[in-house]
Amino acid sequence: MSPWSAARPGDRLTDVDTPALLLDLDAFERNLERMAGALADRGVRLRAHAKSHKTPEIALRQVALGAVGICCQKVSEAAVFVEAGVRDVLITNEVVGSGKLTRLVALASRARIGVLADAAAPVRDLARIAASAGAVIDVYVEVDVGRRCGVPPGEPAAELAVLIAGFESLRFAGLHVYHGPAQHKRSAAERSAAISFATDCARVSRDAVLARGLACETITGAGTGTFLLERDSGIYNEVQAGSYVFMDRDYADNQPAPDDLGFEHALFVRTTVMSRPSSARAIVDAGLKASSVDSGMPGVWNQPGWRYLKASDEHGVIECTEASPPALGEALMLIPGHCDPTVNLYDEIICFRGDRVEAVWPVAARGALL
Amino acid sequence: MSPWSAARPGDRLTDVDTPALLLDLDAFERNLERMAGALADRGVRLRAHAKSHKTPEIALRQVALGAVGICCQKVSEAAVFVEAGVRDVLITNEVVGSGKLTRLVALASRARIGVLADAAAPVRDLARIAASAGAVIDVYVEVDVGRRCGVPPGEPAAELAVLIAGFESLRFAGLHVYHGPAQHKRSAAERSAAISFATDCARVSRDAVLARGLACETITGAGTGTFLLERDSGIYNEVQAGSYVFMDRDYADNQPAPDDLGFEHALFVRTTVMSRPSSARAIVDAGLKASSVDSGMPGVWNQPGWRYLKASDEHGVIECTEASPPALGEALMLIPGHCDPTVNLYDEIICFRGDRVEAVWPVAARGALL
Repeated sequence: MSPWSAARPGDRLTDVDTPALLLDLDAFERNLERMAGALADRGVRLRAHAKSHKTPEIALRQVALGAVGICCQKVSEAAVFVEAGVRDVLITNEVVGSGKLTRLVALASRARIGVLADAAAPVRDLARIAASAGAVIDVYVEVDVGRRCGVPPGEPAAELAVLIAGFESLRFAGLHVYHGPAQHKRSAAERSAAISFATDCARVSRDAVLARGLACETITGAGTGTFLLERDSGIYNEVQAGSYVFMDRDYADNQPAPDDLGFEHALFVRTTVMSRPSSARAIVDAGLKASSVDSGMPGVWNQPGWRYLKASDEHGVIECTEASPPALGEALMLIPGHCDPTVNLYDEIICFRGDRVEAVWPVAARGALL
Repeated sequence: MSPWSAARPGDRLTDVDTPALLLDLDAFERNLERMAGALADRGVRLRAHAKSHKTPEIALRQVALGAVGICCQKVSEAAVFVEAGVRDVLITNEVVGSGKLTRLVALASRARIGVLADAAAPVRDLARIAASAGAVIDVYVEVDVGRRCGVPPGEPAAELAVLIAGFESLRFAGLHVYHGPAQHKRSAAERSAAISFATDCARVSRDAVLARGLACETITGAGTGTFLLERDSGIYNEVQAGSYVFMDRDYADNQPAPDDLGFEHALFVRTTVMSRPSSARAIVDAGLKASSVDSGMPGVWNQPGWRYLKASDEHGVIECTEASPPALGEALMLIPGHCDPTVNLYDEIICFRGDRVEAVWPVAARGALL
């Protein structure tokens, strides 16, 4: 990591070294409040997805505003959040192998721990390891609705639920029904159709579970692009949005639904023009090691005539189509194309309010891949 | 970062937790020797590019095998390598702003430090800051041959050289002429044509510098895809290859030239199958936070019938076209699509020889963006 930080609390925003990851605290706090408001009195909990931010300071604020806990994708991520004081963590992923399962079970002495399953063998392994440790783990059956992991809806889900429920060291906690590809379908109609399908899959799976005489306490899923649809589905009772705290260019490219909550861009990459090879081009110091390009290039904040054209490792090319180009040494704010992998590039988030740095938050679970 | 490491020295390779970044030490050492052999007695130095590996253990081995020093892209990266004992570091990038320049100058008390320039104002700033500190900094004029940073070839380069040479606190060290887009042109003929062009640009710039009565000590550039061409150009006397220590899928996709040195894949992402949703598909635990996808998907090592089809944040989809699909819990080795940003995702490189882990090297400059 860098031997120095990009900024310290109290610094002026204009003095932040670049490239740096910045959080606009006013916009961030409004995003947190919008989410809390959208779920209040609806009988639907928020389990905030911490894979987006990997930052305990953010997770603790989400819990303080009513989130039941967090979810994350890796056992090592879960360990970071448990260590930070989060007491309810769901790993929204399949975990296989006795080494990983042993670490997962060890976390259960300090927090409620859940995990997904889509096959019998890892369930048996987990049951054995949890029993040895005297732990009880929440297990959710993942139902495949987005062509990734998961069992088919209906009877296969019920069958795995029965297996889980048969172990004293496991608790069948419900169904995980997440439609990933739906999150970035551009039209509201496409997103609605996709979540109708996911809801149907959840319903038929729940009914199959109930028909086996089991309870189906939680049906969880959803992301920032669709969670209002799951909220209103009558089936889901927990949503897992994560990116809403930051927003990114890819989410902003979605056409909003009529009830869109207007989450604001709160996360930025501050970058400096380090070369001006022509009047129409500026080269900035944030390339693909500073802003992930897997979901397209970052946007340029508040400069419609400037376009981030392409990225190499440590350079970004800004094309200036209308306005005058930025000057050598001038700082710009970029909107990351995809917030999750961009945050994962940084050790710290520089939090600002107005024109001052207010805090520097460690991205404590950055690089927690295991 | 993860609260635990993927492996410890002495562990069996089959016990390494996943996803993890692995280095095959035998292949890596052969790559180092191939490079040293290719430059021996040619009057061309290696200045190894450390942006690829960000790992002091590797830089020190490169220097021990004859590299004059390293280059890197950021002041904070340079600081990490100076701290680790590298005594000659060139920042192959423009650096602007008094904060960054002050930190750059501070490094010159412990190492020879160089930097690029393509504009007058930052040169004046650097000269002033270096003079205040009593330091002397090597400055190279960057000549633009790949449509990124740099001044046009010829007179503009000479003009900037004259400006640099006029400051006592700066030393005009030569020309930086790097053709980035040439590195991954697929045919040897295209790469050769591109480097002929770069060589012409370097020659006309050098001649313009000499015509001003200045020496032009070093002409530096080149990457893993083309460095034999620069070596044989009669103009370049320093090459900056970096990826050759690892190789990646993107470099392997180049059609080799007749004198290709046969660098081997030494860097891998070890990953585990965590779900088997169908007979033709396996989901692995290495997604785009474990292997950068900016230059395409990773390859699957030694399994021609298996293809890494797509990546989401923490999942990779493996399609099995011919062979039988990998089993749940089975580990695979991926060849990163692009080694530089992939290494930048990891805190440690797990070094193995045969079937045993031999060392764990910190990626000390990972995330050194400033």
